[in-house]
Amino acid sequence: MAKGNINVSVENIFPLIKKFLYSDHEIFLRELISNATDATLKLKHLTSIGEASVEYGNPQIEVKVDKDGKKLHIIDQGLGMTADEVEKYINQVAFSGAEEFLDKYKDSAKDSGIIGHFGLGFYSAFMVAEKVEIITKSYKDEPAAHWICDGSPEFTLEAHDKTERGTEIILHIAEDSTEFLEDNRISELLTKYNKFMPVPIKFGTKTETLPKPEDAKEDDPAPTKEVDNIINNPNPAWTKQPTDLEDNDYKSFYRELYPMQFEEPLFHIHLNVDYPFNLTGILYFPKMTNDLNIQKDKIQLYQNQVFVTDNVEGIVPEFLTMLRGVIDSPDIPLNVSRSYLQADGAVKKISSYITRKVADKLKSLFNNNREDFEAKWDDIKIVIEYGMLSEEKFFEKADAFALYPTVDGKHYTYDELYNAIKAKQTDKDDKLVILYASNKDAQHSYIEAAKAKGYEVLFLDSPIVSHLMQKLETTKENISFARVDADHIDNLIKKDDNKISKLSDDEKKTLDELLKEVIPAEKFTVQLEPMDSDAAPFMITQPEFMRRMKEMQQTGGGGMFGMGNMPDMYNLVVNTNHELVGEILNTKTKKKQERLINQSLDLARLSQGLLKGEELTNFIKRSYDMIK
Amino acid sequence: MAKGNINVSVENIFPLIKKFLYSDHEIFLRELISNATDATLKLKHLTSIGEASVEYGNPQIEVKVDKDGKKLHIIDQGLGMTADEVEKYINQVAFSGAEEFLDKYKDSAKDSGIIGHFGLGFYSAFMVAEKVEIITKSYKDEPAAHWICDGSPEFTLEAHDKTERGTEIILHIAEDSTEFLEDNRISELLTKYNKFMPVPIKFGTKTETLPKPEDAKEDDPAPTKEVDNIINNPNPAWTKQPTDLEDNDYKSFYRELYPMQFEEPLFHIHLNVDYPFNLTGILYFPKMTNDLNIQKDKIQLYQNQVFVTDNVEGIVPEFLTMLRGVIDSPDIPLNVSRSYLQADGAVKKISSYITRKVADKLKSLFNNNREDFEAKWDDIKIVIEYGMLSEEKFFEKADAFALYPTVDGKHYTYDELYNAIKAKQTDKDDKLVILYASNKDAQHSYIEAAKAKGYEVLFLDSPIVSHLMQKLETTKENISFARVDADHIDNLIKKDDNKISKLSDDEKKTLDELLKEVIPAEKFTVQLEPMDSDAAPFMITQPEFMRRMKEMQQTGGGGMFGMGNMPDMYNLVVNTNHELVGEILNTKTKKKQERLINQSLDLARLSQGLLKGEELTNFIKRSYDMIK
Repeated sequence: MAKGNINVSVENIFPLIKKFLYSDHEIFLRELISNATDATLKLKHLTSIGEASVEYGNPQIEVKVDKDGKKLHIIDQGLGMTADEVEKYINQVAFSGAEEFLDKYKDSAKDSGIIGHFGLGFYSAFMVAEKVEIITKSYKDEPAAHWICDGSPEFTLEAHDKTERGTEIILHIAEDSTEFLEDNRISELLTKYNKFMPVPIKFGTKTETLPKPEDAKEDDPAPTKEVDNIINNPNPAWTKQPTDLEDNDYKSFYRELYPMQFEEPLFHIHLNVDYPFNLTGILYFPKMTNDLNIQKDKIQLYQNQVFVTDNVEGIVPEFLTMLRGVIDSPDIPLNVSRSYLQADGAVKKISSYITRKVADKLKSLFNNNREDFEAKWDDIKIVIEYGMLSEEKFFEKADAFALYPTVDGKHYTYDELYNAIKAKQTDKDDKLVILYASNKDAQHSYIEAAKAKGYEVLFLDSPIVSHLMQKLETTKENISFARVDADHIDNLIKKDDNKISKLSDDEKKTLDELLKEVIPAEKFTVQLEPMDSDAAPFMITQPEFMRRMKEMQQTGGGGMFGMGNMPDMYNLVVNTNHELVGEILNTKTKKKQERLINQSLDLARLSQGLLKGEELTNFIKRSYDMIK
Repeated sequence: MAKGNINVSVENIFPLIKKFLYSDHEIFLRELISNATDATLKLKHLTSIGEASVEYGNPQIEVKVDKDGKKLHIIDQGLGMTADEVEKYINQVAFSGAEEFLDKYKDSAKDSGIIGHFGLGFYSAFMVAEKVEIITKSYKDEPAAHWICDGSPEFTLEAHDKTERGTEIILHIAEDSTEFLEDNRISELLTKYNKFMPVPIKFGTKTETLPKPEDAKEDDPAPTKEVDNIINNPNPAWTKQPTDLEDNDYKSFYRELYPMQFEEPLFHIHLNVDYPFNLTGILYFPKMTNDLNIQKDKIQLYQNQVFVTDNVEGIVPEFLTMLRGVIDSPDIPLNVSRSYLQADGAVKKISSYITRKVADKLKSLFNNNREDFEAKWDDIKIVIEYGMLSEEKFFEKADAFALYPTVDGKHYTYDELYNAIKAKQTDKDDKLVILYASNKDAQHSYIEAAKAKGYEVLFLDSPIVSHLMQKLETTKENISFARVDADHIDNLIKKDDNKISKLSDDEKKTLDELLKEVIPAEKFTVQLEPMDSDAAPFMITQPEFMRRMKEMQQTGGGGMFGMGNMPDMYNLVVNTNHELVGEILNTKTKKKQERLINQSLDLARLSQGLLKGEELTNFIKRSYDMIK
């Protein structure tokens, strides 16, 4: 039996890094600036605990493009390296300096914000550069070092005359990566990855207008000066304490995050926890529309102020991916599969922490300013309803703040609704019937009929509300939802009182036969009902069950298979107690009877939005003739 | 000056592989099966050129889960390795055996389908395994070898008594990866990545029913036997020649690709090119809806029959991402940024090759069976219109097959349309006015008015059609599009003939004043027109320009900034030559005049779909009263 050590063939390590280390080449800049930030914060830490006796000052990181020389420079004023340290940290691939440092200064370094994750980052430079130079001067009293490597495993290392403390990385950009010599491209990358990093980053200069001197003439131009162009905000709102921030600070941070977004967010949630995991962040509720798909993936994920991704799937519960804002946590494992992520204990805890915080915030908004909460309901309901459907814990908590608005603009919680309607809207079988409309215009006449009975009609128009009703019907006891046009109102909430029909059984039979001759059976099922004499004479209804199953199928995940393609089913309710219906029966000629029935049917169809195209045009023509 | 070699610290190479090599752990199985496939195809190649004097037979690859033992086995019957080869190919990280092989057998190996890209793949095993064993027996007359490594750089290598040719990889699955001991999970992975790999892959067995023996009794159960469960189709349709395939083969391959898809594709395009790049594949046009967003990302990208991704953004032009099917090309660089991909010359060529092939196919479908093409137009127009808008080359080619359907079901090409309507629909300024409707029901009365004049009305209802019209108006000469309800028909196509008004100027003035008292100015701009006496008395129109700008803004990328939020603008066209209008003028009491105007306005609004809610309910009530 032989034993041995696996031998890593160095000739192949650079192609490996180039091809496989990161799938996205552009992140090399994030990695190098993370290293520069690290070096700066390490120095800050050492000076603060007295281990480095130099002035920390106001260090910044500079990024410079030299397009003619095909070079990109990243210069920091951090702790620098001695030649020995270059040997140790650079020439030994896969030896993470940050980890060793964190280990050594474990306790004191805990809050210094050093980015320990990117020990391998330096080599990502070779994804875009054919040659890399390091010129570095340590804060220690040792000469500067100059390291050059052309991507082969060979390097040279010699002394350098650099005197200022810090490290300069020079990338000689390769032919296939010249995009990274464009100011615009670099600027784009800095904005994407480094916008909130903790050390100021300079990229070029900009012109600033100064106040005019007192003795300036009217049309003298105001003096200007060139100042450093700092591309980042080293102290973004989420790193501060909630108590140090005003409402306006949150709003202006929102504008910083989404400069192209003109609408203000409705409210924010500041996340801040350090046990059992570390997480900070600010989530915003934007105004939402009823379209579920287009508004996802706006939440940005950071690790120690370095942008990582805007895909938070698996970290934030799905219904909250419609929110916006920032989450910053060093505890989220990134290089694992999404399915592993969803099974990870820490991530599960993070996800349920965020859900709880959101529910708590909504509850307190509701309690503290109900009027305002009601005003915003329409813009946030889709998130809350989606959450109620998908997260059981959220469903339970939402009972305290989920609102059920009526067509008249009242807003009930579920308990309030229950108490308000239970006296009137409980039917003879002791079931509470909750009436609703999905469109105030289209269902206007049906809404009016329900209101005339003293019933409340909810206004529920989210695309997923049919699923939510289904869930409420199985969770709450002995209730059912019915859309106002699902039947005529006395059938929707059946009471014991016996309706008296003006028509005799014989008359009813005659009427029924007459109607069935004129009304196409494949379109409408005729249903004779002894309703109030001032209710509509003809009325078209669509049974609740079929319609809701179809809607649920169309919005996905529920209903019955194949129902989405079933044709719509309608009933024609004829009010046998209406004067017009009596007149139809008593009209002498068949032709006149038919005309009356057809005109009444057209009006009923018009009321349900079913009279269209040629039939509508003909109806209008006939009506103009009738006016004349 | 010092020179040296960068030293790769072996202790850290495994964590590096674990963390950084692939972001998605599950691909380890794809990598190991690719290696097994490689080993099998290499043997096939060597036997075919006489370099290996063994029987190739019908080798397969077997995947076995040993849940109790926490092991996963991948067993092939390929060329195997001697101990020396294990030393060379396994113990030297980043040494790609496939590259060396391809180099050696450059010419003869060209078409053998060996997957040369995954030289590093074996080490991905350590992403999920805490210990890996290799038991391998070469096709050469040498003893088998047994290699064991626990993820540290130390390994052991000894002889083994395996006698069958081939390699068995045994993964001792780590604690955090036990998901890969579930049959379901492995089955899911095999289906995702290996469904079309070129060597049969066995995963377990299945029961097959055999024919009953002749002497069996009526109720004897049919005999069954256990057979290998082969999870892949080693010869998928796209690897065959188009001449060897029937229409039905394409359809059944579609069902193989999308087993959950019940609808058949409309037609397919077989891609097959080997110069200047290598690409095969089959694209399908599915039935498409008008929703642009939900139907993307169904095309699967393969490299030598190994599934890579279903994100073909940057490889396939955006408008074609709505298609379905398979693209297989070894020439697409995968580990580069999307922005680099889009700038890559080879990828650009691939993208324009696909565009050209799709255009050619559409043209030949149109030429060979126009009737069928017309019947399918509605289901494919969204892709073609989107392509015309986004790819200039496609726009030019599409002139030959893009269709402009009319409300009566005719289908014109642009040239045909031009010739059919130029005599009648050229206005007095020599501009050709193309009339269209976007909704046959809602615009029915306006369509009828245009048809009464002998005009053709197109039926254009895609969400992006307003952008396409804008483009056609600037590309073609002296044409403009107008929706039928943008004005009354004589204003949409102005001719020289002078209309005679039945009303005197004084009467017009009186009418105008009267109307303005009753009609709310903020809602309708009143416009008196001497139209045909049998045209509608009142008509509501919506000017083309504003409406189209708003629509363009709403579908994104065009129109005028801020227009999307402007209120709708309507004109009320009053036909001064209609009998009813004369009657309004001549009616004695103001009250009656107002009633007539209001009822006429209601009918005009009804025709344009503007009478809703309470106003509609009241209109219907009034109308029932009028019937009685």
